[in-house]
Amino acid sequence: MRELTVQLGERSYPIYIGEGLLDQAAFYFDKHGIGKQSPLLIVTDEQVGRLYLDKLESGLRAAGYRTVSAVVPAGEQAKSLLQFEELITIALKAGLDRKSAIIALGGGVVGDLAGYAAAAYMRGIRFIQMPTTILAHDSSVGGKVAVNHPLAKNIIGAFHQPAMVLYDLETLRTLPPREVSSGLAEVVKHGLIRSAEFVAWIDENADKLRALDPEALGYALYFGCRVKAEIVSQDERENDLRAILNLGHTIGHALEAVGGYGELLHGEAIAIGMVGAARIGVELGAPREVYEVTKRVLAKCGLPVRLPAHFDTDAIMDAMRHDKKFKEGRMVFIVPTAIGDVVIDKNMSAERVRRIVEQLKEEEQAQ
Amino acid sequence: MRELTVQLGERSYPIYIGEGLLDQAAFYFDKHGIGKQSPLLIVTDEQVGRLYLDKLESGLRAAGYRTVSAVVPAGEQAKSLLQFEELITIALKAGLDRKSAIIALGGGVVGDLAGYAAAAYMRGIRFIQMPTTILAHDSSVGGKVAVNHPLAKNIIGAFHQPAMVLYDLETLRTLPPREVSSGLAEVVKHGLIRSAEFVAWIDENADKLRALDPEALGYALYFGCRVKAEIVSQDERENDLRAILNLGHTIGHALEAVGGYGELLHGEAIAIGMVGAARIGVELGAPREVYEVTKRVLAKCGLPVRLPAHFDTDAIMDAMRHDKKFKEGRMVFIVPTAIGDVVIDKNMSAERVRRIVEQLKEEEQAQ
Ligand SMILES: NC(=O)c1ccc[n+]([C@@H]2O[C@H](COP(=O)([O-])OP(=O)(O)OC[C@H]3O[C@@H](n4cnc5c(N)ncnc54)[C@H](O)[C@@H]3O)[C@@H](O)[C@H]2O)c1
Ligand SMILES: NC(=O)c1ccc[n+]([C@@H]2O[C@H](COP(=O)([O-])OP(=O)(O)OC[C@H]3O[C@@H](n4cnc5c(N)ncnc54)[C@H](O)[C@@H]3O)[C@@H](O)[C@H]2O)c1
Ligand SMILES: [Zn+2]
Ligand SMILES: [Zn+2]
Repeated sequence: MRELTVQLGERSYPIYIGEGLLDQAAFYFDKHGIGKQSPLLIVTDEQVGRLYLDKLESGLRAAGYRTVSAVVPAGEQAKSLLQFEELITIALKAGLDRKSAIIALGGGVVGDLAGYAAAAYMRGIRFIQMPTTILAHDSSVGGKVAVNHPLAKNIIGAFHQPAMVLYDLETLRTLPPREVSSGLAEVVKHGLIRSAEFVAWIDENADKLRALDPEALGYALYFGCRVKAEIVSQDERENDLRAILNLGHTIGHALEAVGGYGELLHGEAIAIGMVGAARIGVELGAPREVYEVTKRVLAKCGLPVRLPAHFDTDAIMDAMRHDKKFKEGRMVFIVPTAIGDVVIDKNMSAERVRRIVEQLKEEEQAQ
Repeated sequence: MRELTVQLGERSYPIYIGEGLLDQAAFYFDKHGIGKQSPLLIVTDEQVGRLYLDKLESGLRAAGYRTVSAVVPAGEQAKSLLQFEELITIALKAGLDRKSAIIALGGGVVGDLAGYAAAAYMRGIRFIQMPTTILAHDSSVGGKVAVNHPLAKNIIGAFHQPAMVLYDLETLRTLPPREVSSGLAEVVKHGLIRSAEFVAWIDENADKLRALDPEALGYALYFGCRVKAEIVSQDERENDLRAILNLGHTIGHALEAVGGYGELLHGEAIAIGMVGAARIGVELGAPREVYEVTKRVLAKCGLPVRLPAHFDTDAIMDAMRHDKKFKEGRMVFIVPTAIGDVVIDKNMSAERVRRIVEQLKEEEQAQ
């Protein structure tokens, strides 16, 4: 079992990473002051619910907790205002009060949706993240919660830190391989922005990670969460530093949008975005190795490093213009300067990005 | 012109109260760092919009601001998730970014709705309150923003402090008399919880207030805002002290609900609620004067102090059970102990409240 703390003053909270935590949820809830008088709402999706909801609910009930559950459809479309309203309705009908908590059992979709419901219900009640995807090592830490609007992703949201993150590695065994790789993209990202050593370790251990080797995976998720936690501690509301977590995301978000949020998974899109960012880094003076290592490590994790040719460059640039990071004709862009280091460029030329997007279609597949 | 500051560390903000502020909005925006590069969204309702939107918009545009406006229906039903979503759509289409602000031009409905949109859009952008009702001297200060759910009022919300409150007293001249009285209920409330002297002053000046005498009204709104600001400064998120602002609201909210949010205005409902609370205070040992003064001052302000006989007591008690302030069979209730002083009773018996509600139907009309 690994443990760490997100340091945020009175909003600090623990992250537990280990095997069998689903069974022990009641113990950790109790330890961190989640009382048994007020009902808990467990939010999950159809897929994760089928696999793990009974286990979690029966453990909690056996320990004396009252629980009610909401099962949303699997996939990004559940991050909607409609589902949000539905959760509020269920919370009201179940009599959730200010001492209740909402529990997110699932990937980033469930975490973002349930978290936003917890942020809004009675102007904010407690919220517990129980991530079941690798990607969610990123999304469950840091308190960004949101739902989508038909015109823009994550545009309706809040900063609402969880009371606790309980990460049961056993649940990851049922993850489809493509989701495993997608999640590893954010692990690689955390290395690329903060630790050359960790990137070298992934380079060595990518096969173990893809095979979900418990020891390797536990370490990788611990390290990823730690990087995220440190950055969030320093800049909770993304006034500045926290923006470095967007490495690969400016291009990545646009690719997701142009692909209709179906063709590319989030991690796949940002993998391509990170290759693009590395290329720009090298153009601007970073050692060529930044680009080579980025591409190699991502490919080893089973991620795409080239943009499928049918993606329309104009459409991609257009999607960037609608992204939150776009301001007054130029854009904010996270640029690698070395493996383990990046800078925030607040004045990146759209022209340069456009050229790189074009080049991404001609990348050689690494490995 | 009167000015005061809500002290909340880095979230502190000014309140300006005076005549002609609608015309000078651009000056104050500029003074407080609202830039001209990013578009502003003005939210108002049909009634207020007809009277004041052009004036505000043309002043801002003349000063170089880009503005877009959203006009919602007048009345409580505009505080819905549907209208909220509509505002987000308008904000997106108009290209609002992180440096934009949303401006609430109207009463508490517009303030709560626009404020919640500002809290959610991109996880929170700036928001400016331009109250046009007397009631909104209360709702525009303190950062509570929310929309309603069909099953419960204000259940979907946030704490999101405005960047500024700009209170143009001239706009109050068009307020219907019933709305004037309703707003005065919250002014009286601020006196009852904090200042016997101010209550005595209202007792003397109620006629001037109802006639919208600029000097009297300016002083009353200044004093009301000051009480509210002081309490919010000490307990922004209603962990404890802030609850005293709910004087009269436990019964009042239930009356609004049972009356279908149409029969009684908010201030009317809480006026009756404050008479009930005063009665309970006296039962529990406060001087009888607490009850008499409360009733007299409210009546002088043109407010009801008796519950219409057709209100069903069971329905009222039921509505209280759904209120956020109800916990485990007992209820939290604000009890006056003297004029200008109240205590938070976290263990009020529902039986006692029920008896008082019954008695409220038999009150003599004061004056
Ligand atoms: N809040 C943040 O800081 C943040 C950061 C990154 C990403 N996100 C958000 O996270 C979302 C993506 O998260 P995600 O990749 O976890 O997607 P997801 O939640 O949709 O999960 C991916 C798929 O895997 C299934 N699944 C989840 N756990 C499983 C398990 N243990 N076994 C079998 N199947 C399982 C799900 O049902 C789903 O079909 C996006 O909406 C993104 O915007 C948020
Ligand atoms: N956020 C808070 O802390 C807080 C506190 C108290 C009340 N509230 C909320 O405030 C709302 C009630 O506010 P309200 O009483 O201002 O209601 P309101 O906003 O509905 O205004 C009342 C009516 O007066 C009209 N009006 C407003 N200004 C006018 C003007 N200058 N001239 C002519 N007509 C005008 C409006 O169109 C409306 O029909 C409720 O939803 C309540 O929940 C919030
Ligand atoms: Zn991401
Ligand atoms: Zn009120």
